[in-house]
Amino acid sequence: MNIGILGTGSVGLTLADKLISIGHVVFIGSRSKTHPKAIEFIEKHPLNCQTGTFEECAKFGAILFNCIAGMVSIEALKLAGAENLANKVLVDVSNPLDFSNGMPPSLSVVNTTSMAETIQSNFPETHVVKALNTMWAGLMVNPNLVEGGDHDTFLAGNNEEAKETVKGILESFGWISKHILDLGDITKARGLEMYLPLWLSIYGANKTGAFNIKIVGV
Amino acid sequence: MNIGILGTGSVGLTLADKLISIGHVVFIGSRSKTHPKAIEFIEKHPLNCQTGTFEECAKFGAILFNCIAGMVSIEALKLAGAENLANKVLVDVSNPLDFSNGMPPSLSVVNTTSMAETIQSNFPETHVVKALNTMWAGLMVNPNLVEGGDHDTFLAGNNEEAKETVKGILESFGWISKHILDLGDITKARGLEMYLPLWLSIYGANKTGAFNIKIVGV
Repeated sequence: MNIGILGTGSVGLTLADKLISIGHVVFIGSRSKTHPKAIEFIEKHPLNCQTGTFEECAKFGAILFNCIAGMVSIEALKLAGAENLANKVLVDVSNPLDFSNGMPPSLSVVNTTSMAETIQSNFPETHVVKALNTMWAGLMVNPNLVEGGDHDTFLAGNNEEAKETVKGILESFGWISKHILDLGDITKARGLEMYLPLWLSIYGANKTGAFNIKIVGV
Repeated sequence: MNIGILGTGSVGLTLADKLISIGHVVFIGSRSKTHPKAIEFIEKHPLNCQTGTFEECAKFGAILFNCIAGMVSIEALKLAGAENLANKVLVDVSNPLDFSNGMPPSLSVVNTTSMAETIQSNFPETHVVKALNTMWAGLMVNPNLVEGGDHDTFLAGNNEEAKETVKGILESFGWISKHILDLGDITKARGLEMYLPLWLSIYGANKTGAFNIKIVGV
């Protein structure tokens, strides 16, 4: 499948690498046609990968991943163009981390809304699905790295078919169906984004990001 | 030990019941001397339990539990009296849930601060320790109810000795040392309180509160 990765950070490139390895064709979108990280990535992945602007990326992908920093996601998605995002699944992996007041970061949208809801309301024709934002990129694409994959990931979104599509991608990454918990509509992204401060605290206490949570007892 | 439970909700009474069962003497504090729920509880626990005002409760307890709804905690703690809270461990189990805009609740303090920090700054002589707010009351006092106790609970607070005291109480409830994760100072309460929306979403998706999270991979 043709998949567009919006963003050239470690999350975007980790997802791109995995998607290529399982047979997809990937387009990495950035603000410029010649982002050094995207160029470097393509040199390592000469097959099934190209790069260009956010707009070209959105046009290319049948499915899109928002891997842009939360605080600039809306601006970048506007550059991608609402018409190019319409009727497509947009997997929102972003976290609206605001580092402007130093560490630890706060969230730029929070509590009575979320980044995913903000994207959904700005792009009502797009099927936004919040997913994978609750962990380190290495685990997103390789859940078996810890505890044999016996831990949980979440989905939130308004469109059932879009969530099924994303669930299929997660399963192709190695996630077992019972560990993919559909929390409901896009408002459930609030909890997924507001989990980040706890994630950062656990990371700080244990000095590693290679962890996830497992829901026990249900 | 003499322990004061501030609040007569299910969290406070569940903790009171457990504390009495393991040999402590408990005082249940409320706004009035004759709160019906406190009276009913005492009728069932005629030994080692009494009730009265927040102020009497704070005077009585060598250790105190804040089990008052987050949004009215500061007001209630002022009734308890700063002088009666001074130099004591106050275990803050509260969540600042704001139901004023309907369901799901939002948080009344969030993001760049937390309920626990607000309490700490209002009562600087008190040793506030955030604990146990991330789960259903039944699990707080009986972690073995799910997965043989193989799941995690957290501490945040500025005073190391106070955290050790709270850790000892948690161990007396059945929590195993390795499952009590000290996240650091009281600012780490932000993550613990901001986890609540995710907790509520998981509760909603699975239709039971008898669950907790286990950190895997570290």
